[in-house]
Amino acid sequence: MKKTITQLSDGRELIYFDERDDAVRSEVDARHLPPPPKASELRYDPLVDEWVAIATHRQSRTHLPPEDECPLCPSTPERHTEIPAYDYDVVVFENRFPAFSHRFPSAPPTAPTPLVPARVGVGRCEVVCFTPDHDASFASLPQRRVRTVLGALADRTSELSALPDVEQVFCFENRGEEIGVTLRHPHGQIYAYPFVPPRALAMLGAARRYADRTGRILLADVLAAERAARVRVIAGNEHWTAYVPAAARWPFEVHLVPHRHVLDLAGLTDQESSAFAPVYLDVLRRCDALFGAPLPYISAWHQAPVRHPDRALAYLHLQLTSVRRAAGKLKYLAGSESAMGAFVNDVRPEDAARLLRESKP
Amino acid sequence: MKKTITQLSDGRELIYFDERDDAVRSEVDARHLPPPPKASELRYDPLVDEWVAIATHRQSRTHLPPEDECPLCPSTPERHTEIPAYDYDVVVFENRFPAFSHRFPSAPPTAPTPLVPARVGVGRCEVVCFTPDHDASFASLPQRRVRTVLGALADRTSELSALPDVEQVFCFENRGEEIGVTLRHPHGQIYAYPFVPPRALAMLGAARRYADRTGRILLADVLAAERAARVRVIAGNEHWTAYVPAAARWPFEVHLVPHRHVLDLAGLTDQESSAFAPVYLDVLRRCDALFGAPLPYISAWHQAPVRHPDRALAYLHLQLTSVRRAAGKLKYLAGSESAMGAFVNDVRPEDAARLLRESKP
Repeated sequence: MKKTITQLSDGRELIYFDERDDAVRSEVDARHLPPPPKASELRYDPLVDEWVAIATHRQSRTHLPPEDECPLCPSTPERHTEIPAYDYDVVVFENRFPAFSHRFPSAPPTAPTPLVPARVGVGRCEVVCFTPDHDASFASLPQRRVRTVLGALADRTSELSALPDVEQVFCFENRGEEIGVTLRHPHGQIYAYPFVPPRALAMLGAARRYADRTGRILLADVLAAERAARVRVIAGNEHWTAYVPAAARWPFEVHLVPHRHVLDLAGLTDQESSAFAPVYLDVLRRCDALFGAPLPYISAWHQAPVRHPDRALAYLHLQLTSVRRAAGKLKYLAGSESAMGAFVNDVRPEDAARLLRESKP
Repeated sequence: MKKTITQLSDGRELIYFDERDDAVRSEVDARHLPPPPKASELRYDPLVDEWVAIATHRQSRTHLPPEDECPLCPSTPERHTEIPAYDYDVVVFENRFPAFSHRFPSAPPTAPTPLVPARVGVGRCEVVCFTPDHDASFASLPQRRVRTVLGALADRTSELSALPDVEQVFCFENRGEEIGVTLRHPHGQIYAYPFVPPRALAMLGAARRYADRTGRILLADVLAAERAARVRVIAGNEHWTAYVPAAARWPFEVHLVPHRHVLDLAGLTDQESSAFAPVYLDVLRRCDALFGAPLPYISAWHQAPVRHPDRALAYLHLQLTSVRRAAGKLKYLAGSESAMGAFVNDVRPEDAARLLRESKP
């Protein structure tokens, strides 16, 4: 894999991850772009002790453009996109409408009330293009490309973890208009947060309490229990197991967990990285075959927070969740989930696992 | 207000709350209904230390029936609905597809793995019909009806809080198909949970830390700060203030807070209950006028947990949130919100407040 760092015309970084080591990336972004927006504002919600980002420039972000205006396709002689090259393997670049950024505003935000501190939404948001093929999907990628994507995510995890103020690197893919995707071209995103997000904090808290009680690593034991129970396991190989967690909160939820206790993507060995592709592709293809239509999903890499004292208790895993509960029906986060955080799942995890095992891609 | 307790043909309770003290409710449910489903199963998610309900019977719940099959309209001589009467003011009845119930299964659930304890989803779920008028909305109700609804919710809060195992009573309204409403007839719901839900617990934790630090009640001080700042206040009177919280996480989010520190709806005085209607109706009508179309929303009453030792630190308030961020555009809970719990709000709270103040119903 060859990494080439370039800049777009507005100063944003764009990085090629090429599968050929002799790739030459000399294309120049010929567009005249306005300067990128300044960092957003973080406000502290005292009612639950959490930070919220206020990013007003995102209101005007590109929204479901027609295919011939897709900003993630390669450029052509006639049309300049976000990617200056006429072809690419995997490309990562700074999001044009970032929730977090190191471009500081001229003045720091002021606290709206004494109980609501505010600060700059420092950090970084990146877009990850998986393929130049607009009509592809992650599930349709060859194994080698999945390996390249994983390499790119590992690289970005290392680089972004080294940035000042970054506390958590979160790699994810939103797929499907049902969950609000605004660009159809297959792509993922990376958020480098300046705080440990609530769910990461909740997982770390649970892992700490478990370690205090047992001296053991929580997800290692959860994984061992799922492998022993077998009934919710979907797929796996020597290095990874994919299962529906016993307390799944979504109609279809799959966790992909490496067998070795690894903290983040940068910590995977070459073998582990290569072994991920067949298991994940198998799961994704089963998902798409479930209802005979592309399954809307969120695919989320949970990694160890960058500097948290309990970092070593975290355990890398991918959480794949779908809002589809039946053909033509979605699970919505309404009152109980959205306002109270209490999930009601209409599908028994063992049934979801069986359906996924029986699903024939 | 006159309360009449009756039973449906399958044993579920149905309660009329009538505005006329001489109302007679002798109608009998003539349907032959199958027995209600048994209670769901709760499973403990060890990764974040939270309970999840698995309620498979909800998969077959009534989904957007045509108007002439609406189960929440009054009955007619020709058609029997969930409400036997030919007219009503406010009716509360046990949900036919409950997430929680006191109808125990013949055997308790067994733990799917040693790390995931399971127990019966004991509790209760109720439906609250606000009006017999299928085409009405909460915003279109007269003030007197709002007062009756509030009285019914206060009654249910008292009654459900007294049930064994109930730890939290949550009254809410989901409005709009955009957030997954499956019945169009104006109605709310009540969930009596057998655990303190995650957001209630988070609020109580923040209130405890604030009390330890200052000796004061958190939301009382937040309210005072918002009233002093004024810039995010939408409406109010002697007893209530409605404002966009300074760290709002939704494009449109309004909190309605009583000026007196009250723990739950049962604790409101008559004056406070009566004073709620004009403020809430004003806010709802401004919401519907924002985009010239009914705003999808979740309206959530946050009440003190029933038996938690820090119950006295909680503070009743209504949280109204909308996923609409612009005409034709919704805010989705995608990767950051859904998988990480980190909210990015595209609308500045002060702008949302200004838009709501300028909105002309």
